[in-house]
Amino acid sequence: MRQTSFAQMHCSLARSLEVVGDWWSPLILRSIYLGADRFQDLAEDLGLSRNLLADRLRRLVDGGVLTRERYADRPPRDRYALTRAGRELVPILAALTAWGGPVADAARWAAVVFEHAGHECRATVGCGTCGEPLTSDAMTPMPGPGGRRAAGTTLVAGIVAGHVPRRP
Amino acid sequence: MRQTSFAQMHCSLARSLEVVGDWWSPLILRSIYLGADRFQDLAEDLGLSRNLLADRLRRLVDGGVLTRERYADRPPRDRYALTRAGRELVPILAALTAWGGPVADAARWAAVVFEHAGHECRATVGCGTCGEPLTSDAMTPMPGPGGRRAAGTTLVAGIVAGHVPRRP
Repeated sequence: MRQTSFAQMHCSLARSLEVVGDWWSPLILRSIYLGADRFQDLAEDLGLSRNLLADRLRRLVDGGVLTRERYADRPPRDRYALTRAGRELVPILAALTAWGGPVADAARWAAVVFEHAGHECRATVGCGTCGEPLTSDAMTPMPGPGGRRAAGTTLVAGIVAGHVPRRP
Repeated sequence: MRQTSFAQMHCSLARSLEVVGDWWSPLILRSIYLGADRFQDLAEDLGLSRNLLADRLRRLVDGGVLTRERYADRPPRDRYALTRAGRELVPILAALTAWGGPVADAARWAAVVFEHAGHECRATVGCGTCGEPLTSDAMTPMPGPGGRRAAGTTLVAGIVAGHVPRRP
């Protein structure tokens, strides 16, 4: 079991990962988005144990990413749906799906590609202000509203705030 | 230990998660990007055990996301740098950082915000073809080149290929 709760960290990335950041959760969200929305469907699709699946679904419901709806009473059967916050994760997961790299190589391994407004669409991260595609070189990190020098941000909080110089 | 290797799944999201998809790896990449690039810095910043950190760094190097460079021999000391594939992950992590949701609420918890070309920038996922912001409703999943009906995609491969109807 994990001993650190990312929910305590003063970093919204860590807190996002608290909700979706194990190996299975993003795949569970993918499968529900694609239409495998019942417990039995998910167990079959992903091939993971019922205990592990139940635990991850509970975490995703508690994290506000999924809702659970009972569609049959005898025997009790539930289906899952993405909340608004869950739907907002879909494009981010699509960007991770389209990410290259030697292991993930989307050109070879993408099980899903996306169409958007009639054309093929590679999910790309851009600047929400000017719309240009974002690259790491073009982004400058600045202190955010939630920054604290605490576990998980002990050093980077100071770097971002300018107290500790970034090494060249 | 995890018993399933996502590297075997016919899904580029799963394969991306094989490289970066535990709780710690995205935070390690965040810290290196922000300038905490030495083993001791990362251990201090994140407050995680040296064994766990060494394991995650090894996985990220093996996955082609980081390179390791020895900067001192006595005692041996390494620093880490993002590869091109690693730098391509930065905007995706920025989008996850900016993601809302009840737990991650970036307006409250973002330790870092980004500036781009002189203006504040919220990393947003858009269509790489037309540049419009992407929402889950506007995206249609289609079969990709790597899709197979195999563990991790048993059911969704059929749904995407149209053999199994998506439930309304």
